[in-house]
Amino acid sequence: MTRTVDLNADMGESFGDWTMGNDAALLDIVTSANIACGFHAGDPNVMAKTMGLAVTKGVGIGAHPGFSDLQGFGRRRMSLPPDSLQNIIRYQLGAAQAMAKSAGGSVRHLKLHGALSNMASQDPEIARLCYQAALDLSPDLVIVVLAATEMEKVVRDLRCAWAGEIFADRAYNDDATLVDRSLPGAVIHDAENAATRVAKMIDAGAIITESGAQIPTKIDTVCLHGDTPEAIEIATAIRSRLQREDIRIQKF
Amino acid sequence: MTRTVDLNADMGESFGDWTMGNDAALLDIVTSANIACGFHAGDPNVMAKTMGLAVTKGVGIGAHPGFSDLQGFGRRRMSLPPDSLQNIIRYQLGAAQAMAKSAGGSVRHLKLHGALSNMASQDPEIARLCYQAALDLSPDLVIVVLAATEMEKVVRDLRCAWAGEIFADRAYNDDATLVDRSLPGAVIHDAENAATRVAKMIDAGAIITESGAQIPTKIDTVCLHGDTPEAIEIATAIRSRLQREDIRIQKF
Amino acid sequence: MTRTVDLNADMGESFGDWTMGNDAALLDIVTSANIACGFHAGDPNVMAKTMGLAVTKGVGIGAHPGFSDLQGFGRRRMSLPPDSLQNIIRYQLGAAQAMAKSAGGSVRHLKLHGALSNMASQDPEIARLCYQAALDLSPDLVIVVLAATEMEKVVRDLRCAWAGEIFADRAYNDDATLVDRSLPGAVIHDAENAATRVAKMIDAGAIITESGAQIPTKIDTVCLHGDTPEAIEIATAIRSRLQREDIRIQKF
Amino acid sequence: MTRTVDLNADMGESFGDWTMGNDAALLDIVTSANIACGFHAGDPNVMAKTMGLAVTKGVGIGAHPGFSDLQGFGRRRMSLPPDSLQNIIRYQLGAAQAMAKSAGGSVRHLKLHGALSNMASQDPEIARLCYQAALDLSPDLVIVVLAATEMEKVVRDLRCAWAGEIFADRAYNDDATLVDRSLPGAVIHDAENAATRVAKMIDAGAIITESGAQIPTKIDTVCLHGDTPEAIEIATAIRSRLQREDIRIQKF
Repeated sequence: MTRTVDLNADMGESFGDWTMGNDAALLDIVTSANIACGFHAGDPNVMAKTMGLAVTKGVGIGAHPGFSDLQGFGRRRMSLPPDSLQNIIRYQLGAAQAMAKSAGGSVRHLKLHGALSNMASQDPEIARLCYQAALDLSPDLVIVVLAATEMEKVVRDLRCAWAGEIFADRAYNDDATLVDRSLPGAVIHDAENAATRVAKMIDAGAIITESGAQIPTKIDTVCLHGDTPEAIEIATAIRSRLQREDIRIQKF
Repeated sequence: MTRTVDLNADMGESFGDWTMGNDAALLDIVTSANIACGFHAGDPNVMAKTMGLAVTKGVGIGAHPGFSDLQGFGRRRMSLPPDSLQNIIRYQLGAAQAMAKSAGGSVRHLKLHGALSNMASQDPEIARLCYQAALDLSPDLVIVVLAATEMEKVVRDLRCAWAGEIFADRAYNDDATLVDRSLPGAVIHDAENAATRVAKMIDAGAIITESGAQIPTKIDTVCLHGDTPEAIEIATAIRSRLQREDIRIQKF
Repeated sequence: MTRTVDLNADMGESFGDWTMGNDAALLDIVTSANIACGFHAGDPNVMAKTMGLAVTKGVGIGAHPGFSDLQGFGRRRMSLPPDSLQNIIRYQLGAAQAMAKSAGGSVRHLKLHGALSNMASQDPEIARLCYQAALDLSPDLVIVVLAATEMEKVVRDLRCAWAGEIFADRAYNDDATLVDRSLPGAVIHDAENAATRVAKMIDAGAIITESGAQIPTKIDTVCLHGDTPEAIEIATAIRSRLQREDIRIQKF
Repeated sequence: MTRTVDLNADMGESFGDWTMGNDAALLDIVTSANIACGFHAGDPNVMAKTMGLAVTKGVGIGAHPGFSDLQGFGRRRMSLPPDSLQNIIRYQLGAAQAMAKSAGGSVRHLKLHGALSNMASQDPEIARLCYQAALDLSPDLVIVVLAATEMEKVVRDLRCAWAGEIFADRAYNDDATLVDRSLPGAVIHDAENAATRVAKMIDAGAIITESGAQIPTKIDTVCLHGDTPEAIEIATAIRSRLQREDIRIQKF
């Protein structure tokens, strides 16, 4: 049986004169790109450039909306009323669709960013509001969810196209949440180790937690990072190792 | 012969907790609404509310993009490279299209705001860059231009749908520019007088300047204002007077 | 025995082209002005104008710092690390001091705004961080606290100059918090009634709650509002009524 | 005769999660730091950190105010009325003074940033407005000016403390303006060459232009850059070379 998986990464996170990450290098590794939409990072120029590169390299374009908080990089939780939550999704998705179209592509998927993602993974109402707003605009959009969280329940219920995401480089607790970064072993720095874990989880069709427990889920895509030269190296190594494991890397 | 004209106004210019203008009242007077897109004014909530009202009242929705400058309300000139100029148009138009679709409508026209409009009315290259970026995304978009300016030459050349706009309440110089606000007679405060001028210009198919000269042009829409209670009164009076002149008020 | 009280109001909350409130009218009523510092509202021009008026009218100038969140008017809670919290206080206080000095005055007091104030009234650590940062810069600053809250405990502990504040137009719960706006009777719209309550509380040296309970506290200043024409009327009426009650209105 | 010169660099230009330059390395090379004030770059946290380092390393702290334009990094020209121009200087200088005081230091000098600096170097009225606003707040402030420009005339006329600045790595035209970056030889990439030029200009008490002409001026400080690893190397090499030329490096 051929196993396939998508590799995704957040990008387009530069802003004005400030550069973040190495999008050109990452786009040679991943098959899906989650591109910031100007609220927590990115700006119209950065979006145009990143989407243009993604089109050239055949990488799937995703909208990556977040809270309107440049200084906090969208990582500070904000309480928004339901309407406002939906409006920031609509606005950012629409902007991303226009930028993608101008670059010769289109927005295939949507993945929430930062604090908004954290909140939606815990509160199904927030997930539902965000996803519904996006799907009303674009019914075929693939929603990328943190596998085995409230997000997954919501997209199953919405009966929309969706992709379940796991992290290559993070240990999991038994409730499918990530082990806190401050704890030993929370972040996996060894690419071989990370790739072996991913292969095992794909085979098992389950998240494998630190304790060895298995949480059955749909694994469609693996999140990689590219914000440091070291991160690019690890992402490259994971990709190579997955290929040697006979896992086909392709867009979901 | 039946004469018809569209009435337009800028709106959706509130931001967060700050209110500007009286959009609900204006939407009972105009047939086209130029709605700010969040760069110089407006935010996703304001756009959603204003567009929802426009749909309910059958008023045509327009994107009204400007420079990214909330504090200066988009009235400060900025020099942007050609790519950046096009990207801010794409981004704002895309956001407006999504907000309009979510409100049950669609973006029919585009009118540039503030300093960006002033610059485009003088520099055909700026007008061309902005309009081309918008038309690539939405080929049927109606471009609203300041009649008899460089903008008009550009849209004629682009062979796109367009509407020529005159001001009801401003006196014109012989080169079709507006008489400077600081000069006596520059702003017409009397609604009857304003409406009479509009009717004459529509009949003449020309801008009639302060000196009495005529500048032939296509007059499709008249710009009204609604930022003060007095402005709403004037706009109402102009509408009534035009109707008494047997000019039909309808969307371009 | 002569009773005296200060009247304060938030102001300088316009931004760019957006006007909020009627600062000129309010400055004829209050004795202390809490002036926004550009993060949640206000900008350098608005600060200059408001402070200039305050100096002319002999009203005490206060810095009114908040979260950096124009769109949410500083009313959305944000979790900031302790250092960041202190840095936003330092920055805004410094800016306010410079603007006040340029206007011929100086910053006498500090009052936290919106969500930051709410958080500090419940969490003494947040109050302490903010107040300490301000007092390190300006040891004689008067800290305005919500009377009988955690804020009061903190300023007593810091042994700094402080003023206890009550609201003229809001009903209190038995724990000194405000009755939720959504409940009947939460907001007092009758100026006579509001002024009578204030006089009683000043006499009692205590907050008098809806149930009639008394919470002893130091009452130095009464918060008034001026964001609507009606609010200005109520503020004026409260001031007159307090004077008729032989309560002297003067700066703390 | 001992010759002395100050070395300065712009820093504190990171913002939120975005890093720019290597301030820690630069602070080992320069004697004066021009620190962004949050309008075009920098934020309260970045200011606190950079100023703390400057105090530790004995480097003079300067306010480096610019236009309120994060996306354009303060490099886009804006037309502001005289009052507004003064208010943005006051606000930024006040914020910088508070941050410096909290870090255990104080603001010794002021240097304008980006487009605001370019405009002030050509238009003496703009220079005068900015400098006067700053000096009214802080009469002993040292104003750093581009040597031999309109700025120099203004500070001579204001009779304030000032320092004349030259660039180590840029060729000069005969009118003391910089050779356009697009022309060959405009930027000097060789550290030895750059240092030799600086030494010659200090000896001559004049800017030496590309044609060999001399423009007499006061040279107090040399601007270095540190935005790339290469720039840090060049800055280090210039410093060493100046020391070998028996030029003492010390704060103005």
